[in-house]
Amino acid sequence: MSSPQPLAIAGIIFEPRAVLGDHRGAVLHHLRAGTPYLPQFGELYHSTVLHGVVKAWKRHHRVAQNLTVPVGRVRFVAYDDRPDSPTRGVVLERFLERAQHGLLHVPAGIWYGLRGEAPGESLLVNCVAEPHDPTETDRLPEHAPEIPYRWPTA
Amino acid sequence: MSSPQPLAIAGIIFEPRAVLGDHRGAVLHHLRAGTPYLPQFGELYHSTVLHGVVKAWKRHHRVAQNLTVPVGRVRFVAYDDRPDSPTRGVVLERFLERAQHGLLHVPAGIWYGLRGEAPGESLLVNCVAEPHDPTETDRLPEHAPEIPYRWPTA
Repeated sequence: MSSPQPLAIAGIIFEPRAVLGDHRGAVLHHLRAGTPYLPQFGELYHSTVLHGVVKAWKRHHRVAQNLTVPVGRVRFVAYDDRPDSPTRGVVLERFLERAQHGLLHVPAGIWYGLRGEAPGESLLVNCVAEPHDPTETDRLPEHAPEIPYRWPTA
Repeated sequence: MSSPQPLAIAGIIFEPRAVLGDHRGAVLHHLRAGTPYLPQFGELYHSTVLHGVVKAWKRHHRVAQNLTVPVGRVRFVAYDDRPDSPTRGVVLERFLERAQHGLLHVPAGIWYGLRGEAPGESLLVNCVAEPHDPTETDRLPEHAPEIPYRWPTA
């Protein structure tokens, strides 16, 4: 097991995961029972993001995200506006791709967004502790002035 | 919710799943809490298979598979050699791809294998009720005479 890597925002953790490959293909680990990142199984789903496209911003009230990017390359950006957080005001940018495969754990309460950085389409897989509930999500438009980050335009 | 579709081998079920798309990308459903296909969370992992490559044969003693193919196209082949099965001796072939997105549920006890059918690499996502345990798996080589199926060679 690789060690978890705390990132610049309190509670966001990147944990490298094994990629076991041979000439036929690869196996990419994501989550196992007993992980603290998934106290119970709620839902598993995939999402795609096209090259240069931004999906932002979103914030969950209760549900932590457990993301991997098995295909393509994704720019992940987070902004901590939690009143009691020791890292309030911090913006984090991280690229997710197979060459540095791992789990990105994002606690509830943090604004985050994604941008597709690979040609064609990138794929995210996410596994969360509650089935999707639109009432536990806040949204802001991609250029919202409340968030001190400007997405690249090219 | 779409209805489950029983396939030619008893217990193997294909259940169509929603693909919700817009100009930015798509969301692909896989599994939610409460599904009978996943009585508990054991492990989530991904695997890739390259074009024209066969990964076969495998049989699990206890663990059912819950597969989707969000990227590419995969030929899934199963052979039922369960002594008490009403479909003993049956071979099933099914293609998995986003154009017909859904969950393929494969109970324990059935031989199965995969072949990559899309250019480049295809991706499978699998979610199972027990963490990986190599002692609960039987394997046969891809051309094993015990299984009445010949993989295409081109």
